[in-house]
Amino acid sequence: MTAPGSVFGVGLGPGDPELISLKAARLIAAASVVAYFCKAGRTSNARTIAAGLLPAGVAEIAMAYPVTTEIDVADPAYNTALAAFYDACVARLAAETAAGRDVVVLCEGDPFLYGSFMHLYTRLRDRVRVAVVPGIPGMAGCWTAAGTPITWGDDVLTVLPATLDEATLTRRMGDTDALVVMKLGRNLPKVRRALAAAGLVDRAVYVERGTMAGERVVRLADKDDDTAPYFAIVLVPGQGRRP
Amino acid sequence: MTAPGSVFGVGLGPGDPELISLKAARLIAAASVVAYFCKAGRTSNARTIAAGLLPAGVAEIAMAYPVTTEIDVADPAYNTALAAFYDACVARLAAETAAGRDVVVLCEGDPFLYGSFMHLYTRLRDRVRVAVVPGIPGMAGCWTAAGTPITWGDDVLTVLPATLDEATLTRRMGDTDALVVMKLGRNLPKVRRALAAAGLVDRAVYVERGTMAGERVVRLADKDDDTAPYFAIVLVPGQGRRP
Repeated sequence: MTAPGSVFGVGLGPGDPELISLKAARLIAAASVVAYFCKAGRTSNARTIAAGLLPAGVAEIAMAYPVTTEIDVADPAYNTALAAFYDACVARLAAETAAGRDVVVLCEGDPFLYGSFMHLYTRLRDRVRVAVVPGIPGMAGCWTAAGTPITWGDDVLTVLPATLDEATLTRRMGDTDALVVMKLGRNLPKVRRALAAAGLVDRAVYVERGTMAGERVVRLADKDDDTAPYFAIVLVPGQGRRP
Repeated sequence: MTAPGSVFGVGLGPGDPELISLKAARLIAAASVVAYFCKAGRTSNARTIAAGLLPAGVAEIAMAYPVTTEIDVADPAYNTALAAFYDACVARLAAETAAGRDVVVLCEGDPFLYGSFMHLYTRLRDRVRVAVVPGIPGMAGCWTAAGTPITWGDDVLTVLPATLDEATLTRRMGDTDALVVMKLGRNLPKVRRALAAAGLVDRAVYVERGTMAGERVVRLADKDDDTAPYFAIVLVPGQGRRP
């Protein structure tokens, strides 16, 4: 009987391939099977980050989301479609481990911070051996790219998904010292209005493709359009104690 | 005339030396001068993490805090002592760069998330070339060690320094989906009371030395004593949308 393999959820960091950890690099370079999420018909961001480390002849499992923004997340059909997708991914990975092969799942940023891998993790953890390697979160890549320390002294940091409703965004933006707004995409106009209502527009920094080719850092007030990728981030650095 | 050197603020991640990034490892391995913060008379945590990468013959600058907990942070003498200390560190590093040498400053976690390096960065950035390499934050090492994804779907994440007053902690703990409490140390009894008032004791996880030798993960309710290192963390994982 073949000894079962393991699944490794491996954080790749914010995008610069050199920001991959030594541990993640070691696991990827030794992998016989890698898996990654992607949009149907699109190149996987995670695969692109790890490309230079993939060994020759590695088997690849592309896990293409059945929906991304075509169905609203509040629609029960969204949950149904995603749950079936994650179940299918898990069956695919479990078949690999049952055959004695390890699978390295390539994860952008940190796997446990708003990461899709979490949905596999909770389904797999009672069935197969699963290990997770943390990564540098995308937001840390963004505040580094912006050259702005994010929290000082006793600053409170709030991380908000831009998918929240405008009133919630406004209230929470007005009640923190430092702020990260994730998942911008089509939510940027709403985020602008909420920042304005919270009196934070002048302190907000927009970061797109932080640490990657095409990186863009600009004061949000100086950004003339409302086009933003889903992974773009808005930061409001804290202003706490500085001896 | 000698071309001036640069200062590199390099994040080392949460403690496991293998969680250092490829970029940080490259800079450390090529360094002729490294610098790090430490308590007077104590081994530097940052130096310990990087020890295996330090090249033979590297010059080391130990920057020993003049005070840590001997003076309350609210005492003006604290700020005065720390400001003079950071100024002296900057003068020391600037002397190195003026002599044409690069200096790699070893930073635990991520340099821009509650990091001491930020105080050097703001003083140095208009005088010398400074570059920052992000690192995996200690909190990401802790939630990975705990095996608990921290944020799901639209979860709001709040990061609180345990140094805040109890009423503020209680209010903010009761108004978030996911929670990280940093800088525990002697603040643990206060944090326990605030978590209890916010109804979160049963969901709270205590993590000490996450990703390092001596790592300890325990439900906070099961931790019988109130001893905690300054870098221990309490987590309350979010419970957001999970297809």
